[in-house]
Amino acid sequence: MEYLWKQNIRKIDPYVPGEQSKEKNIVKINANENPYPPSPKAIEAIRNINANKLRFYPDANAAPLKKALADYYNTEAENIFLGNGSDDVIALCFQTFFCSEKPIAFPDITYSFYPVWCRLFNIPFKTYPLDKRFRINPDDYKEENGGVILPNPNAPTSIGEGLDFVRRILDNNRDSIVIIDEAYVDFGGTSCIELIKEYKNLVVTGTFSKSRSLASLRIGFAIADKELISYLEAVKNSYNSYTVDSVSIAAGVASVQDDEYFKSTINRVIATRKRVTNELEALGFEVLPSSSNFIMATHNSHSMKEMFEYLKTQKVFIRYFSLPRIDKYVRITIGTDEEMDIFLEKVREFLK
Amino acid sequence: MEYLWKQNIRKIDPYVPGEQSKEKNIVKINANENPYPPSPKAIEAIRNINANKLRFYPDANAAPLKKALADYYNTEAENIFLGNGSDDVIALCFQTFFCSEKPIAFPDITYSFYPVWCRLFNIPFKTYPLDKRFRINPDDYKEENGGVILPNPNAPTSIGEGLDFVRRILDNNRDSIVIIDEAYVDFGGTSCIELIKEYKNLVVTGTFSKSRSLASLRIGFAIADKELISYLEAVKNSYNSYTVDSVSIAAGVASVQDDEYFKSTINRVIATRKRVTNELEALGFEVLPSSSNFIMATHNSHSMKEMFEYLKTQKVFIRYFSLPRIDKYVRITIGTDEEMDIFLEKVREFLK
Repeated sequence: MEYLWKQNIRKIDPYVPGEQSKEKNIVKINANENPYPPSPKAIEAIRNINANKLRFYPDANAAPLKKALADYYNTEAENIFLGNGSDDVIALCFQTFFCSEKPIAFPDITYSFYPVWCRLFNIPFKTYPLDKRFRINPDDYKEENGGVILPNPNAPTSIGEGLDFVRRILDNNRDSIVIIDEAYVDFGGTSCIELIKEYKNLVVTGTFSKSRSLASLRIGFAIADKELISYLEAVKNSYNSYTVDSVSIAAGVASVQDDEYFKSTINRVIATRKRVTNELEALGFEVLPSSSNFIMATHNSHSMKEMFEYLKTQKVFIRYFSLPRIDKYVRITIGTDEEMDIFLEKVREFLK
Repeated sequence: MEYLWKQNIRKIDPYVPGEQSKEKNIVKINANENPYPPSPKAIEAIRNINANKLRFYPDANAAPLKKALADYYNTEAENIFLGNGSDDVIALCFQTFFCSEKPIAFPDITYSFYPVWCRLFNIPFKTYPLDKRFRINPDDYKEENGGVILPNPNAPTSIGEGLDFVRRILDNNRDSIVIIDEAYVDFGGTSCIELIKEYKNLVVTGTFSKSRSLASLRIGFAIADKELISYLEAVKNSYNSYTVDSVSIAAGVASVQDDEYFKSTINRVIATRKRVTNELEALGFEVLPSSSNFIMATHNSHSMKEMFEYLKTQKVFIRYFSLPRIDKYVRITIGTDEEMDIFLEKVREFLK
């Protein structure tokens, strides 16, 4: 029996999130998570949460966290928008800023959620191929469009670009909103947050899930001109007024205020990235130049798909994309030195 | 100078969430929050969170909390959907289930977010007036429609209806999805969750923000036939894969498993509601019959707007709606006995 009410249901192909293995003693370097715990001050903030206030709704404006980020980025609270992870923030940006009939523009190889949001919100889009070195050519983004979004550093390529590159994108797109997704910027990329004063059509997004080791708490943000932020707040407040919970606000503030710990974990990840890159190159791999907490690598004389499968049997989980152009590469998150030693050992076994 | 890119921005009237007073020593009985803290076991779960796992993404499926709720409601995990508060859950339900060209149906006096979501998602709607006793007539919901949503108990009227009422709505709407929003049901209402086996087009939503005293953590859920839940998951996973954070999952599980505490706080709220209702009636108020953690009250010989304003000056915050039909009423959340004694004292002062 077919029910009439089924006609009014939206049926879309589900975007299946990467499965988290439940096995123990694995090396999990497949989700670009940080190998180090968050700031001890963030952990303390969670443990010291005021139990008597849990019954109240959180501050809908998440004011303490906006203030902490404003101080950190040398801007004002009204320039900051907060959400339930940067996926929530970017999804709201798509709904708010990409309301044109013209297609929005993004690279062919990039964060795989962009086309999913386009389909969800009925936003037309056009992709522009990365060049042979997997870099974005800013002059590709000159065509009339309904908006531009790109990650810098890009994912899964790991390649970061400088301020001149972002300026060029912005100068080519004076009539569109440009979103620069800086999820990975803290690991050696160049942030363009300072450009929001100059370009009123620039939105920069960020996350606490990578460099701040708080993926479990879901905190994302956008920084832009106050007027743009006000439009974003209006849409958010028409969807769900309280998206960032009290525990996340408290832990987020503590994380932002502990810059010493933040810088020290980032430096450790960067040092490990350099070492692993050198060792892989010594083994004959080609590694793309990374400004992120992960690397993209390939090998002339070995199948990366087979290496991915072999490592899985050895309980080392990296990421392989069965997609055109990047199917000869693997993506490897930078773990601890101990984890990367196990990874390198298993790679050497595979190469033999 | 007008920028061209402003044309592509969605500009909507923001839904302004109720302001939270920052004053101390106030009686805050304006947001239908629970006066008692959450289960001590939920608080313990937060304090004992595994700090080494905060760096990982949460379980996208929030499986432990689905399992706890499935056990509690005598159903299966596949019948349960979880979100970032029930506003998130209902917003996703609107996007998933209300895709008809026909208007969806809900009461004229009800949760004020329903028309806001309709505007956000371009869903046509038609409202049906409550009767003179502020009750919903189930036979009003016979017209062809694109779906039905109503809270039971309704808000801000506080009035709950029984299973026969819900059956009648469902029998009148065999060709539409019917959402029953049970945000307040635990305070003496009648849940229709058992009907999901019989009616494949029924979606029941609930929240941890009221009866479970966890408004700060943002946990909402929907219970329905597995097929409906699968459509909801597909839309959610095309928006934001990780909406319920690890701390909320852990605290939520602990809350559901501590039924003794849950029932004891609910019984306290119900006992206080009875006492306050009696005392208000003795003072000449008319109080609608409540199955919720709040009451709607009016007085023949006094302006409720003036009472609301007077109480505010006395640091007692209740809710007044400047809306047709209910502008002669105030909504009062049931606080602790001590808070309600202060409230009643100030009401007596006002009446003099």
